[in-house]
Amino acid sequence: MSVWTVSYEGFDPKKEKLREALCTLGNGYFCTRGAAAEASANEVHYPGTYLPGGYNRLKTEMAGKIIENEDLVNMPNWLPLSFRIDHGRWFSLSKVELLEYEQKLDMEQGILTRNFRFKDDESHITQVISTRIVSMADPHLAAEKLVLHPENWSGRVQFRSAIDGRVINDGVARYRDLNSRHLEPMTTHNGAEDVMCLMARTNQSRLEIAEAARTRIYRNGHLVIPDRETLEETGYIAQLFELEADQKDTLTIEKVMSLYTSRDPAISEIGLETCKKVSRAEAFDELQAAHGEAWKRLWHRFDMKFTDRDPDRGARIAKILHLHTFHLLQTASLNTVTMDLDVGIPSRGWHGEAYRGHIFWDELFIFPFLNLRLPEITRELLMYRYRRLEEARFAAKEAGYSGAMFPWQSGSNGREETQTIHLNPRSGRWNPDNSHLQRHVNSAIAYNIHQYYQATRDTEFISFYGAEMILEIARFWSSLATYNRDMDRYEILGVMGPDEYHERYPDTDGSGLNNNAYTNVMAVWVIERAMAFLDILPGDVAEHLSLRLDLQKEEIGRWRDITRRMFIPFHGDGIISQFQGYEDLEEFDWEGYQQKYDDIQRLDRILGAENDTPNRYKVSKQADVLMLFYLLSAEELSTIFEKLGYTFEYETIPKNIDYYLRRTSHGSTLSRVVHSWVLTRKQRSKSWELFNEALCSDVADIQGGTTPEGIHLGAMAGTVDQVQRGYTGIEVREDVLWFNPCLPEELSELKLELRYRGYFLDVDITCDQLSVSALRAKEHPISIGYQEEVKELYGRDSVTFSL
Amino acid sequence: MSVWTVSYEGFDPKKEKLREALCTLGNGYFCTRGAAAEASANEVHYPGTYLPGGYNRLKTEMAGKIIENEDLVNMPNWLPLSFRIDHGRWFSLSKVELLEYEQKLDMEQGILTRNFRFKDDESHITQVISTRIVSMADPHLAAEKLVLHPENWSGRVQFRSAIDGRVINDGVARYRDLNSRHLEPMTTHNGAEDVMCLMARTNQSRLEIAEAARTRIYRNGHLVIPDRETLEETGYIAQLFELEADQKDTLTIEKVMSLYTSRDPAISEIGLETCKKVSRAEAFDELQAAHGEAWKRLWHRFDMKFTDRDPDRGARIAKILHLHTFHLLQTASLNTVTMDLDVGIPSRGWHGEAYRGHIFWDELFIFPFLNLRLPEITRELLMYRYRRLEEARFAAKEAGYSGAMFPWQSGSNGREETQTIHLNPRSGRWNPDNSHLQRHVNSAIAYNIHQYYQATRDTEFISFYGAEMILEIARFWSSLATYNRDMDRYEILGVMGPDEYHERYPDTDGSGLNNNAYTNVMAVWVIERAMAFLDILPGDVAEHLSLRLDLQKEEIGRWRDITRRMFIPFHGDGIISQFQGYEDLEEFDWEGYQQKYDDIQRLDRILGAENDTPNRYKVSKQADVLMLFYLLSAEELSTIFEKLGYTFEYETIPKNIDYYLRRTSHGSTLSRVVHSWVLTRKQRSKSWELFNEALCSDVADIQGGTTPEGIHLGAMAGTVDQVQRGYTGIEVREDVLWFNPCLPEELSELKLELRYRGYFLDVDITCDQLSVSALRAKEHPISIGYQEEVKELYGRDSVTFSL
Repeated sequence: MSVWTVSYEGFDPKKEKLREALCTLGNGYFCTRGAAAEASANEVHYPGTYLPGGYNRLKTEMAGKIIENEDLVNMPNWLPLSFRIDHGRWFSLSKVELLEYEQKLDMEQGILTRNFRFKDDESHITQVISTRIVSMADPHLAAEKLVLHPENWSGRVQFRSAIDGRVINDGVARYRDLNSRHLEPMTTHNGAEDVMCLMARTNQSRLEIAEAARTRIYRNGHLVIPDRETLEETGYIAQLFELEADQKDTLTIEKVMSLYTSRDPAISEIGLETCKKVSRAEAFDELQAAHGEAWKRLWHRFDMKFTDRDPDRGARIAKILHLHTFHLLQTASLNTVTMDLDVGIPSRGWHGEAYRGHIFWDELFIFPFLNLRLPEITRELLMYRYRRLEEARFAAKEAGYSGAMFPWQSGSNGREETQTIHLNPRSGRWNPDNSHLQRHVNSAIAYNIHQYYQATRDTEFISFYGAEMILEIARFWSSLATYNRDMDRYEILGVMGPDEYHERYPDTDGSGLNNNAYTNVMAVWVIERAMAFLDILPGDVAEHLSLRLDLQKEEIGRWRDITRRMFIPFHGDGIISQFQGYEDLEEFDWEGYQQKYDDIQRLDRILGAENDTPNRYKVSKQADVLMLFYLLSAEELSTIFEKLGYTFEYETIPKNIDYYLRRTSHGSTLSRVVHSWVLTRKQRSKSWELFNEALCSDVADIQGGTTPEGIHLGAMAGTVDQVQRGYTGIEVREDVLWFNPCLPEELSELKLELRYRGYFLDVDITCDQLSVSALRAKEHPISIGYQEEVKELYGRDSVTFSL
Repeated sequence: MSVWTVSYEGFDPKKEKLREALCTLGNGYFCTRGAAAEASANEVHYPGTYLPGGYNRLKTEMAGKIIENEDLVNMPNWLPLSFRIDHGRWFSLSKVELLEYEQKLDMEQGILTRNFRFKDDESHITQVISTRIVSMADPHLAAEKLVLHPENWSGRVQFRSAIDGRVINDGVARYRDLNSRHLEPMTTHNGAEDVMCLMARTNQSRLEIAEAARTRIYRNGHLVIPDRETLEETGYIAQLFELEADQKDTLTIEKVMSLYTSRDPAISEIGLETCKKVSRAEAFDELQAAHGEAWKRLWHRFDMKFTDRDPDRGARIAKILHLHTFHLLQTASLNTVTMDLDVGIPSRGWHGEAYRGHIFWDELFIFPFLNLRLPEITRELLMYRYRRLEEARFAAKEAGYSGAMFPWQSGSNGREETQTIHLNPRSGRWNPDNSHLQRHVNSAIAYNIHQYYQATRDTEFISFYGAEMILEIARFWSSLATYNRDMDRYEILGVMGPDEYHERYPDTDGSGLNNNAYTNVMAVWVIERAMAFLDILPGDVAEHLSLRLDLQKEEIGRWRDITRRMFIPFHGDGIISQFQGYEDLEEFDWEGYQQKYDDIQRLDRILGAENDTPNRYKVSKQADVLMLFYLLSAEELSTIFEKLGYTFEYETIPKNIDYYLRRTSHGSTLSRVVHSWVLTRKQRSKSWELFNEALCSDVADIQGGTTPEGIHLGAMAGTVDQVQRGYTGIEVREDVLWFNPCLPEELSELKLELRYRGYFLDVDITCDQLSVSALRAKEHPISIGYQEEVKELYGRDSVTFSL
């Protein structure tokens, strides 16, 4: 079994959407998505193409209310490439008899191929091999090559190569009542020789997009210049080429495509730039070679090697981890760094229209992995937040708070994009949506800034951007917290935790819940970190920043007080209550519902359809309290709790895990990742089981249909990070890179190459040994720790610990 | 004498353009320029406003040839703000009797004020105080406040506040035959309440610009809501406000303005964003306070304090150095960093239309200063080059070379923008222009990358961007160099050095010259540095980069060979020839011409008008050979020369300085900077004299009219750097920060705060002592050196050396 190839034999229209989602190509600058087979059955390939960051805001009336949406916009489709024989019917998969069909994604090289043979109504048998890349070597380029073999016929072949700007957004069924047209045509034109160009703009934000394509045709490897005819309609341009084909000829059509948008740097006018680009581009094979080299370099940085005691299982896991990393690198791409793209990390990658490309908190599961590989990507993605800091400050002010309140869902200009009503597709009803009360997204941002700094010691970043964000978030938490004189403690009222099943107390009209434990503890953690950053900043940066933010001693005093008196709810025997009053909820009839329904992951929809609500039950969509054990080490938690005057014992963690694990439906793909992680050391086989389930989130589309709407990037990265940080126990604390390996019994060895504070480190872990070797670096020494022992590493040294 | 204020008493229409240029306000994101008095004599203030990076390309027929220009585009003018009394004539400086007039630029706070009293035809006496800022605290905001005191009248006052999008580019007389219209109107509209908005786009690049203004009126400090009338014409919008004024009333009109362009990150639609911004903006006084705080922080980083034995002279010099730093910080702004502006450093700042905002090599005189203050700015400005690397590669390829050939003049998309014909305004003739043959700009870029790295040790930057650029430039030099079998040496043929008086051999039709010494030596230096970078890069970055660039051993072999056999021309007794054959040129009749013409700085134009050419003479517009002594230390030069098999003696430097100093007209403002620098140690009084002349470049407009077309940023930065690095002898070599102080006799003490490899260092130099103290830093120790002695500095330590 190849660990580098995803392949599907045979064409299955029912599975096509899922397969296409999993085989999506992209490079961060643009992503192409496969399928939507019905929509374009007359072409060999049918992808919609998304434009990262190409947001568009449209007011739509729905269920009697005006909804303002921020939609991910489909780009003009550059892929239409079809052919016909003797002026017959244009090729369509559904209109021919398929003799063979194989689709293959080569993840090592970033190449998608389709190889098929078909017989048409005239009994022509033809073999077709299509190869497609979206260049990692040059963000502006993509290319496709179609090779056609007439097996039993000779005749005239006509090729049609088009750019279609009439695309709409209809990839998600339940959004189809929303306005689907976001693109308006500008112009089409033929450039020099074999180049055609189409320009369009988004209809609200007026982002301009230019695409150009150069189409070349080869017969038996020799360039031919067939007659060319151009078709131009509003928002559509096509070139038709006609030539004679003999039986056994090899006809090749190469389409190289370039893309620019009006936000790109270093351009004059996008029409000129895109035509220039495609005219200067090399031929397909050279583009493919450079693209393959770029992927090779990426894999060199990102691969991890492990030995499974069962080689078949190992290969299956390796393949899925490759797929997860592949999509991660296409979305959180190195091109976001080199292209100044100003994008964040959307929950569903750039792969589908679900969640409309919005940015949630998924970066919490993604950045810690990237930090130890190519932290430069994280830095650029954190800048997405920094550029929206002012909007977050305004949001806090409008809501009556201080500091910065980042939105739960974020789009182009950083305002809150969370819907205020939400469709239950099971009941068909629109319900109020309080999910914007998930203020915990702010702690996720602060956590990532801290993690990035720990991994890189990038003083410039924290001096200019990082510290300011974390201070403003701390300030927000402080202003959101209210002092309760009766308890002599601070509280955070009216918020939602990550578990979206609970958005209010049952039988009330209020919104939000009081003292969500995850929110409260993380608020304290953020405040602690903010105070620590004031000590870390070099020179007089802290002083200048405090002046600029008007940060007074009294305010810091309140912060310090909050870290000593924040309220955390408990119930039963040391169980941290998900929120205050959780213990009063009813236990849920898990067995009954499991019998009644096939799939109870989305209990909210099931209960909603029964006129009931999960608000009434001790039931979670996903890990909430357990997030604490996912993000913070036992040492850190115990310090926080002790300072707050709460008991934190050795048994607190397993007891809570056990309690909540039994009450979770895993309605979010992130849930299994967190549960697997927190069980790594305490319940290795259960952890391994959940890890394997999490691996299947997308490849098996375990939520039944959500993957074709876009992959689940948090879960993808989370599983890779379970191997990278979960099983190695990596943690940076007090300038030491600590390891605490705990391989699952199924694995005998794990090898990683990590980046840490300027070093490239080769890490090798077996059952009884940990070794860390440095590649060439002219950096200052670093410290590596295991248990009580800390060793210094310098230059090309290596250090070894017995486990 | 205040060292922080530039002030002019009395209004002088002849000097107004110069004064306005010197008092230009800006913040990097946008710059406002004063004057163009004729164009808008009916307003209190008349500035055109430039948009950095808002290039526009227009084909223009000129002298029978099609010229493609890339022009800096004037933004819509947000400043029109006028008034009239009792529906009389709108206020115009030229139509009233001025009783008092003062214009004042407060550089410490970044505030421009005008204070005047006038009497109109009706004998109304009125006092007006106008205050203007372009915010350093918020890149999108600018504001103006106009305070009006009726001294001897009561009546109805009408204010008119406008945004004018009908502006053209006509700031440079000799460009007026070129197309001056680059802006086309889009829309105007009234936003909520007191906000108006105008949108326009550039007519070639379709960059969109939105400006909004909020105008508020106060009587005796209380907000009043007078009747408002709106005037809208194509490309123009104005609000008229009318109210009653009593004698002794204080009427205040506050205009707050916001600006967005379609290239900005984190926006939805520019019209929305700009209106939102201005609606949320605070009142003038708060904006001014935040702006002043931002300048305070900047000055804290950038100021230098010195003690002149003559306090008056010291104050005069300090004021000019402040002015130079002020304009430097407005152009090479911190906002280019935080706003991802993708701009380079234009020769004339963003202050005037001369050179159309093009980027030349001036950064060579600017970045080394910034590196030791806020290196983050340099990094961002170097990224301007990196984003145009591909275009430079294409240019090299097109010209038959390898690697990257950056253009002499650069604009939006990085192609060569140098004019091919050039107007001699003295003769009225258009002459062919070979100045694009100034390939030495490539060495300037490489030099700056190296300097930046030395000051910061920013491994990430060189790994991702810097090394790639320097390797590609080395490769270009290697491919440009040709091997001459007869000499057994490499040559570089057909180029131009910095001295633009020499662009071909006399009496030939060829273009360029052979073996320009500066070019050849710097090519060797670049190649040496490129090879060194391959050793410095961490991990396997060098290997990956070599693979990506297909850098083979043979090529490195050729590089090594070139560093041993590059040809350098000499003549006479150890004089480095400016280029091969220089010794055959005629000596120039300096005395004769000095008698014949008042000003012989631009000898090219004088000789051209006489049908002669400087190509025939031993005469330089500016330092060429001497640039070597400006950029490289004697140690470095001697190593290079020895390796090449040439003699480099202690006397080589003074001998060459002496030779060329006598043959230079200083036709470039950069020339005196270089001469002053190279004489620092050898001829202190001559150096001091040239330094003082260089200080006057702009304040006295010594080129007679060029300053109103835009300040000379290279000379401005060069003079500041003469103090920072020239008099301190700062050089980073082998990881040691070396000092070699040599204060002019006129100065008794010099204090600087420098940034070096994560440290903030306080440097204090007197005649007999050098001390360097570190502010808080958690960095690794650094080494400070003086003569043979090297001391380690760590944490908050300080080190002292006796001089």
